[in-house]
Amino acid sequence: MERDSIFADMLFDSRPIGVFDSGIGGLSVLKHLVRLLPQERFVYLGDTARVPYGNRSAETVRLYSSQCASFLLTHDVKMIVVACNTASALALDTLRATCSVPVIGVIEPAARRSTSETVNGHIGVIGTRATISSDSYAQSIEAHSDGRSLFVHSQPCPLFVPLVEEGWLDSPATRLIAEEYLRPLIANGIDTLVLGCTHYPLLGPMLSSLLPLVKLIDCGECAAHDAFDALGAVHQDVLHTPQISLYVTDHTPAFTLMARQFLGMPIDEPVRVSIDNLARRTSER
Amino acid sequence: MERDSIFADMLFDSRPIGVFDSGIGGLSVLKHLVRLLPQERFVYLGDTARVPYGNRSAETVRLYSSQCASFLLTHDVKMIVVACNTASALALDTLRATCSVPVIGVIEPAARRSTSETVNGHIGVIGTRATISSDSYAQSIEAHSDGRSLFVHSQPCPLFVPLVEEGWLDSPATRLIAEEYLRPLIANGIDTLVLGCTHYPLLGPMLSSLLPLVKLIDCGECAAHDAFDALGAVHQDVLHTPQISLYVTDHTPAFTLMARQFLGMPIDEPVRVSIDNLARRTSER
Repeated sequence: MERDSIFADMLFDSRPIGVFDSGIGGLSVLKHLVRLLPQERFVYLGDTARVPYGNRSAETVRLYSSQCASFLLTHDVKMIVVACNTASALALDTLRATCSVPVIGVIEPAARRSTSETVNGHIGVIGTRATISSDSYAQSIEAHSDGRSLFVHSQPCPLFVPLVEEGWLDSPATRLIAEEYLRPLIANGIDTLVLGCTHYPLLGPMLSSLLPLVKLIDCGECAAHDAFDALGAVHQDVLHTPQISLYVTDHTPAFTLMARQFLGMPIDEPVRVSIDNLARRTSER
Repeated sequence: MERDSIFADMLFDSRPIGVFDSGIGGLSVLKHLVRLLPQERFVYLGDTARVPYGNRSAETVRLYSSQCASFLLTHDVKMIVVACNTASALALDTLRATCSVPVIGVIEPAARRSTSETVNGHIGVIGTRATISSDSYAQSIEAHSDGRSLFVHSQPCPLFVPLVEEGWLDSPATRLIAEEYLRPLIANGIDTLVLGCTHYPLLGPMLSSLLPLVKLIDCGECAAHDAFDALGAVHQDVLHTPQISLYVTDHTPAFTLMARQFLGMPIDEPVRVSIDNLARRTSER
């Protein structure tokens, strides 16, 4: 971990940890954060008025991400976890340059983990079109290859997010689409697959049944471990009620049901907020 | 047509016709407008920075739609065609109350057409979750039933938009999903099916092959006919180069290719604009 100094003393810092995503997917990251860091408070923002980020331009993703981070900073967070692959791929440098607190993305932790998991050196990466086009996973895997010859096989899977949001986690159509997407990765003999989108862990059982010999990497779980390490935390067996303040930029009745599925536990109704006008303040700094 | 008076003399009004959609789907409506009204100029706005509207709350759809309409009014349009089913379902009344020009939606024209096409009185309606939940088609069909007993069978088909945007117009997975969605409509014996989303006409050939005896209604084509009638236009055989000014709120490389598919002809690169701040001006009126 190269950014040790700015993490110093954060374990005893009672401020909350900020987490944002374009929508609800980041709750699958929050789930691991809550499990690993039960003593912490969390502020989660889902930009549900503008989800998805996966098909937007880099400029727009950077603007929206800056607005999300600005909102979290108004809640005096001590750390920001970017629980969105598209934002991690396109906006992490911008956020690190403009935010006064440590910023953890979901790409580098999962990329690093994949290099230690692969045996044959063939790593598959699946994600939205924007994440895959950014080439961020491939670059990060290369940066952590430590001189080994690693082969990254990337595949955008844009239909997976709508399928998950419809709850079609293991329908015949979902399997057919997954087989289509995974065919080139299987042909390339991958032994490790990075789920490079926070929606994909919900497809984990179906993907495992299609790829019984392949190690699946959950990017949210890896990021949560990085946050744990960064805070210098120690594992606690005590059970706390999760302390989560939940904010969204748009609220529909479908939200709460879906949120529960991603988080794996019941959740309070979210508070709706507007963040459109936070942009200029951030860029004026 | 009940709003005759405000349409008076619009045929000789040289101002352009404004058209907006949450994204590119509305280009399938513009296609019919250009074909029927080749002598007119068009200003098209796709709110691609915030697409899709189909899973947003009514309040957010109304805000975004008002911002789109405000943008078109700054281009001195003589009429606004709301080429988006979700916006037509949730924001048409708001727009008609706040805009100084006639506003045509895509729902009422298609609903009216379906009542004249059905023989057995069983009409199917497919659309996004927001459009179907709004019950707008069913209410509009009822309003045009003219005393007949009509039965509306509605089915949200949320996976159709991403499938179309992926270009999977007739893949095995698309057929499997379509069969799943259409099963209850077929069981109810529909003889007419309203394609209540501007993306769906691209699935027309596949849907026709699954429903060979069912009349498909293209909401964009119906709305274009209403605009034609409203302008008091006459059919022209002359071929003009379409006069389209194209604006988007976000621009990605995928746009131009997809736009061409929806419009059915080559199209200039769009101009990117920001409309976030038009809201307050509209609501302050």
